[in-house]
Amino acid sequence: MSGRRRGPSTTRQEILDAAREVFADRGVDGTTREIAQRAGVDPAMIAHYFGSKGGLFEAVTALQVDPADVIAPVLDADAADAARELLLALVRTWDAHAPVLTTLVRSAMRSKTLAGQMRTFILERAVGPVVRRFSPDDRVETRAALLASQITGLMLTRYVLRWEPLASADPAWVADHVGPTVQGYLTGPLPED
Amino acid sequence: MSGRRRGPSTTRQEILDAAREVFADRGVDGTTREIAQRAGVDPAMIAHYFGSKGGLFEAVTALQVDPADVIAPVLDADAADAARELLLALVRTWDAHAPVLTTLVRSAMRSKTLAGQMRTFILERAVGPVVRRFSPDDRVETRAALLASQITGLMLTRYVLRWEPLASADPAWVADHVGPTVQGYLTGPLPED
Repeated sequence: MSGRRRGPSTTRQEILDAAREVFADRGVDGTTREIAQRAGVDPAMIAHYFGSKGGLFEAVTALQVDPADVIAPVLDADAADAARELLLALVRTWDAHAPVLTTLVRSAMRSKTLAGQMRTFILERAVGPVVRRFSPDDRVETRAALLASQITGLMLTRYVLRWEPLASADPAWVADHVGPTVQGYLTGPLPED
Repeated sequence: MSGRRRGPSTTRQEILDAAREVFADRGVDGTTREIAQRAGVDPAMIAHYFGSKGGLFEAVTALQVDPADVIAPVLDADAADAARELLLALVRTWDAHAPVLTTLVRSAMRSKTLAGQMRTFILERAVGPVVRRFSPDDRVETRAALLASQITGLMLTRYVLRWEPLASADPAWVADHVGPTVQGYLTGPLPED
């Protein structure tokens, strides 16, 4: 009979697969009950493996991309090329994972907790390391916020609003057109605070 | 007995007031049934006055601000000051109407229809007129998309992600720090497409 029992790693993976589908369809409105149904497991298994819907959502999105891998080549770039390398890395990554990342952004809009997690995530894992690496001064927080304003807006305009010509442009076009802004926020002179 | 009947303009206004509260609480998840209950009217009255929840949502948000009023002083500015005037006008308006505008942005994230309406609204009523007024060439669509990428990201970072120091900065700080980017997208040289 043991052949009919699924092992823990299979159950965990089936929950993750189901959650990815449900979150992609319905964002954070997707319920653990729907996810459990789709995975064919008892809802208690979700609590067992992931603690809560929030924990499950984090696991689903964390699986997609390790920001350290995305950022690594940027940190090795010359300062003068940093913005271009950052934009190429981000846009290529987003393009490859657009549905889940769009869901993540959409969901972050709806929940203060998720918005806070998203801010922390972007800051600590993506924008923060790049700003600390290339900032010519100690105004790291201002540069990070400005960088975030352009990068999140790019994501929003390209993937959620689907605003042309930005929505269909290739990554190099985006790097060419938005690069000077990002480079300015990263290494350029800033006005007095 | 006619004193007990509410006239059409009162009913319409009561529906709008109720809808503003429900949408502020729950975004587009708020149902017409909840809105009708809160307004103390039959749900058929919502269909009668606004056609649908989408129509009601438009009426609620349209009531807040007339973009033509916001944009008017920008269109009168010198080209060299256009970005600064645009940012001051937008940030002051957003600050004064932050809850409803945040709800609008959040909701636009969740629905392709609303995202399309938001894109059309921003383009036709705010970004479009400014770009057409100040663009030194015929690359109006590219300039509008780039402008949208910075402006929507500013809104997102300041009001939804609440990212400091951008979230608490006064409008002049925002105009100082983001102005050069917006000015570049509006009137600066662009790379070849």
